[in-house]
Amino acid sequence: MVNTEKDLEQQFTSINTSIQRVNIPPPQPFFKTFKSSLKETFFPDDPFRQFKNQSPSKKFVLGLQYFLPILEWAPRYTFQFFKADLIAGITIASLAIPQGISYAKLANLPPIFGLYSSFVPPLVYAMMGSSRDLAVGTVAVASLLTASMLGKEVNASKNPTLYLQLAFTATFFAGVFQAALGFLRLGFIVDFLSHATIVGFMAGAATVVCLQQLKGILGLQHFTHDTDLVSVMRSVFGQTHQWRWESAVLGCCFLFLLILTRHISKKRPNLFWISAMAPLTSVILGSLLVYFTHADMHGVEVIGELKKGLNPPSYSDLAFGSPHLMTAIKTGIITGVIALAEGIAVGRSFAMFKNYNIDGNKEMIAFGMMNIAGSCTSCYLTTGPFSRSAVNYNAGCKTAVSNIIMATAVMITLLFLTPLFYYTPLVVLSSIIISAMLGLIDYGAAFHLWNLDKFDFVVCMSAYFGVVFGSVEIGLVIALPGLQPQVSVSMLRVLLFVTRPKTSVLGKIPKSMTYRSVDQYSVASRVPGVLILHVDAPIYFTNASYLRERISRWIDEEEDNLKSSGETTLQYVILDMGAVGNIDTSGISMLEEVKKHTDRRALKLVLANPGSEVIMKLHKSKLIEGIGPEWIHLKVGEAVEACNFMLHSYKSASGPWPTKTKSETQDNNV
Amino acid sequence: MVNTEKDLEQQFTSINTSIQRVNIPPPQPFFKTFKSSLKETFFPDDPFRQFKNQSPSKKFVLGLQYFLPILEWAPRYTFQFFKADLIAGITIASLAIPQGISYAKLANLPPIFGLYSSFVPPLVYAMMGSSRDLAVGTVAVASLLTASMLGKEVNASKNPTLYLQLAFTATFFAGVFQAALGFLRLGFIVDFLSHATIVGFMAGAATVVCLQQLKGILGLQHFTHDTDLVSVMRSVFGQTHQWRWESAVLGCCFLFLLILTRHISKKRPNLFWISAMAPLTSVILGSLLVYFTHADMHGVEVIGELKKGLNPPSYSDLAFGSPHLMTAIKTGIITGVIALAEGIAVGRSFAMFKNYNIDGNKEMIAFGMMNIAGSCTSCYLTTGPFSRSAVNYNAGCKTAVSNIIMATAVMITLLFLTPLFYYTPLVVLSSIIISAMLGLIDYGAAFHLWNLDKFDFVVCMSAYFGVVFGSVEIGLVIALPGLQPQVSVSMLRVLLFVTRPKTSVLGKIPKSMTYRSVDQYSVASRVPGVLILHVDAPIYFTNASYLRERISRWIDEEEDNLKSSGETTLQYVILDMGAVGNIDTSGISMLEEVKKHTDRRALKLVLANPGSEVIMKLHKSKLIEGIGPEWIHLKVGEAVEACNFMLHSYKSASGPWPTKTKSETQDNNV
Repeated sequence: MVNTEKDLEQQFTSINTSIQRVNIPPPQPFFKTFKSSLKETFFPDDPFRQFKNQSPSKKFVLGLQYFLPILEWAPRYTFQFFKADLIAGITIASLAIPQGISYAKLANLPPIFGLYSSFVPPLVYAMMGSSRDLAVGTVAVASLLTASMLGKEVNASKNPTLYLQLAFTATFFAGVFQAALGFLRLGFIVDFLSHATIVGFMAGAATVVCLQQLKGILGLQHFTHDTDLVSVMRSVFGQTHQWRWESAVLGCCFLFLLILTRHISKKRPNLFWISAMAPLTSVILGSLLVYFTHADMHGVEVIGELKKGLNPPSYSDLAFGSPHLMTAIKTGIITGVIALAEGIAVGRSFAMFKNYNIDGNKEMIAFGMMNIAGSCTSCYLTTGPFSRSAVNYNAGCKTAVSNIIMATAVMITLLFLTPLFYYTPLVVLSSIIISAMLGLIDYGAAFHLWNLDKFDFVVCMSAYFGVVFGSVEIGLVIALPGLQPQVSVSMLRVLLFVTRPKTSVLGKIPKSMTYRSVDQYSVASRVPGVLILHVDAPIYFTNASYLRERISRWIDEEEDNLKSSGETTLQYVILDMGAVGNIDTSGISMLEEVKKHTDRRALKLVLANPGSEVIMKLHKSKLIEGIGPEWIHLKVGEAVEACNFMLHSYKSASGPWPTKTKSETQDNNV
Repeated sequence: MVNTEKDLEQQFTSINTSIQRVNIPPPQPFFKTFKSSLKETFFPDDPFRQFKNQSPSKKFVLGLQYFLPILEWAPRYTFQFFKADLIAGITIASLAIPQGISYAKLANLPPIFGLYSSFVPPLVYAMMGSSRDLAVGTVAVASLLTASMLGKEVNASKNPTLYLQLAFTATFFAGVFQAALGFLRLGFIVDFLSHATIVGFMAGAATVVCLQQLKGILGLQHFTHDTDLVSVMRSVFGQTHQWRWESAVLGCCFLFLLILTRHISKKRPNLFWISAMAPLTSVILGSLLVYFTHADMHGVEVIGELKKGLNPPSYSDLAFGSPHLMTAIKTGIITGVIALAEGIAVGRSFAMFKNYNIDGNKEMIAFGMMNIAGSCTSCYLTTGPFSRSAVNYNAGCKTAVSNIIMATAVMITLLFLTPLFYYTPLVVLSSIIISAMLGLIDYGAAFHLWNLDKFDFVVCMSAYFGVVFGSVEIGLVIALPGLQPQVSVSMLRVLLFVTRPKTSVLGKIPKSMTYRSVDQYSVASRVPGVLILHVDAPIYFTNASYLRERISRWIDEEEDNLKSSGETTLQYVILDMGAVGNIDTSGISMLEEVKKHTDRRALKLVLANPGSEVIMKLHKSKLIEGIGPEWIHLKVGEAVEACNFMLHSYKSASGPWPTKTKSETQDNNV
């Protein structure tokens, strides 16, 4: 039976009208869409949801509770909770005191400032923080960064007062920056530190910190100020005659003890208190040992006198007029971001375990306030370190009251117990740091990255080697895409994705109307005469010309293949736009060019499943009329059906499908 | 009829086994995938395809033809072609001579260098270029940029030799950079100049160039060296008493003439030669007028003496040892990129009209060689300007021979006709520049951007105002994302896309198994008890935490809605991964967290249509086992069917669907 062309077109139109067409969403007023995208960008978690439809007084209470979560949970606080928090608080205090002293040494600050930093900030966090498990304290990486960044400008041993002032100023700006990020809803900046970079950066920083401890372990007097592996090794092996065996033996013993307890606690989580108590036990044992053997006379350095008394105020030390202000600000911002990244990640993961929510931006405000308050009360940068928070969680803490207990314990120490640390050997502090740092080197995670994603592994390793062989700052530049996006390895993948999106050919899955990539599904079979291409990224100026070239290469290759096999000729090119989330004007031009290209080769361009953004812009740019609205389908399957229909009918009726000119298509639409 | 749980699971499994499962592509050796992605990144157009399976001698000929396309087309050159090229060549020469002189003035170079630059580079391009329509010459924007960037270091009037040397050096480095981009297959860098930025930047540059011409039109002696609107206006209106009416009247008359001819040619494309000839006619008319009226004695400045003779060699002028070398390099790179962007775009669009292909990387090599050769023969930066190429195309050029004709005409001018330009008034040159620049201000395109894409409009306007009120460099920083990605407006959208991907709820399209966004399709209806979410971007570290928060907010909102309506409770969350082109380890962790989150709320997480990259990583990370392979479907429709089956059967049999624990799921798979 031979159909006339007219009949065929009527049949085609009737098929077309019976199915659902691609909807063009109604045009929205510009400011409405603008407002809604602003909201999605800055308030994705919709923090003001609970404020809706409330009385003003209720709103005030809710607002107060938003900034001071303690007001929310304190009324519900019970004695049961207190018992649990008391035990957890004492446990973390026993960890906080030796760690505080050790990390302060790492930051080139007098040890007492480590204790000060474990007193005020936990109290602030207890009021403002929303995590129930986070234990506040100083961290090794931020301490090391402070020492290395400030140390470049000011020598801590020659000019201790200025150094101290800059440390407080840096802490102040870290706090201001953190709080500002929270207020401005820019918390997502922290997310730019990818998991892979954090693994690499943390392991690198831990390696560097361990290397620095060789000074303490070997009892060396002089040591390089650089942190890279080469300098440190040269420094260590350049003065082998200065090594003190007493110090080394003591250090190795305590290190062994600490690693053993960590190992035990890891195997049996309910014995967490063994490793939690180990540092304090080591300090006590070490001090007693020195006291009774007078080892301090034989090359074992001790902490010496710690001033009794609570934190002295330090707001007058904030050096806003100093010529080194820029360094302080830079140090503050960088350490602040690192501290935030750790603190927020820790808070989130424990919240996940206990099934409650942490608002990242709110936490940033809490961290910021805690550091601003800290900088005025002789504290340096604090955050929520993972190790201490894990002990807190394991010890069964219920609320942030455990931080208050810890602060109280530190307060008692500051008021009465500081003389007890006189004989504490520095080498014990080094052992404590090393044993804590070894836990940060996560071989498992690196191996997992290698298995799962080679690119992430490269990112991780670049950050690691950047820190170990270069400096902490070099590692950071590699890690933090915001600093120098051009050289950031981790940003490269995102750039590659938007410049080189993947295109794949789809084929029909047997016994279904579904079309999937022929690379992924070996059962998928190509449709003769129809090339179905899937684009898996938004079409922007960054990839528009790549896509134009790639699509025309697909068409060339398909035509070559068909020519050599001598089967049917190519007649239709279907673009599956299902994964094209958005398109800009360069992308629209690209589609127009592809349209011209296919027209010139007497091919018909068909679109399938354009999303709302895409169809709206196709509509506005009149490209829908160019392609013909009947050639824009909801599904790939329907598009193929329409092509097949035309292909077979026309083949029997009047030869190949005539390429429609623009005017014809428009006539059809009238 | 009440089924037992066992029966149901068997039924479920039998349904499951009858349909096509999501394929996990077989693992590929690392270096194979690495090689293929390198190829896709750097050789998307597969330029070596024709080299395959050829003899070595054939390969050599093909390679030679690759770098010197003239070898390919010259043997097929006919006399018919020559006649067409001769006419086109003479036409563009008549445009090239006055424009060359004018643009050289714009670059603060002696006018003769404009003629030199229209002699050697077109010859080089004729041999190496693959476009048949491109007419080579200097361009206004690059000239202005050269003047403004070099002018900051060296005053062109006080130290003309050094300035000239730097201009050649900058041209040399522009050529080296262009050729290097081509050789290294990095041509996609040029694509980072989006259409919107080019529209804004070009319009801004044209405005700035026009403003600079006020000096010539008003016959001013002193003029600001800044290019921004405010400085120029202050300079112009600060010396109203210096304005020369003779000059202004002459300028306005010629400007009117030029604009009129442009208007005529625009209306009647076959009269293209009227506007093409107009500049030369103006120059001749103006010169005659000055010669006969002695207007050069009355405040109308003239060009003066031009040296007779061909390009002198200038390779000894390349100032590699100069202290200003860095400025020359910077100027070269920036003007080189701008010139490339214009030249490639022009070549591509005319190739599109005539249906032949342009290899971007090959063109870059040709441009680079042309500028390297130019820098050694007293030429400054050249490219393929749009206006001249359009005239070439309209004049019916067939091959690059029209460039050779133009170069010959310029050669004759240089050898014999330079004295004729003695009396050419500068004001005519200003009129020529202004009339050419007015064509670059594309109101229509800006209006189109506003209609089509508000964001692109903002990008365009930022580039425009950056150039007009700031400087060309500020406009460039806004325009070129590669320079300072942090502040580039055009990069912001790409960053927003990868940090804030859109998630939408899908519903069922009536009378089909298709699920589409309920926002786009008002007919789509939600499935009770099942929340179907579509994620439309790859899941990377940049958006992983956003997506986690957004997905949990969708779940919260859905549960709230269902609670208030009192209907069914939420039981299943289906994630449509069809548009998730890739995922990194942060993304996998995010999915694991979403899985934990849904488990804790007794919801079942179901995945639909994961692509090959995604399913491979789900497989490697063992997340498939966590979710249960029977809950990963090829299509959203099948996923919903499976959910509905469980929902209704379990409701009638044994209450809500029990959340499977990990061990149970694993047992099922054994």
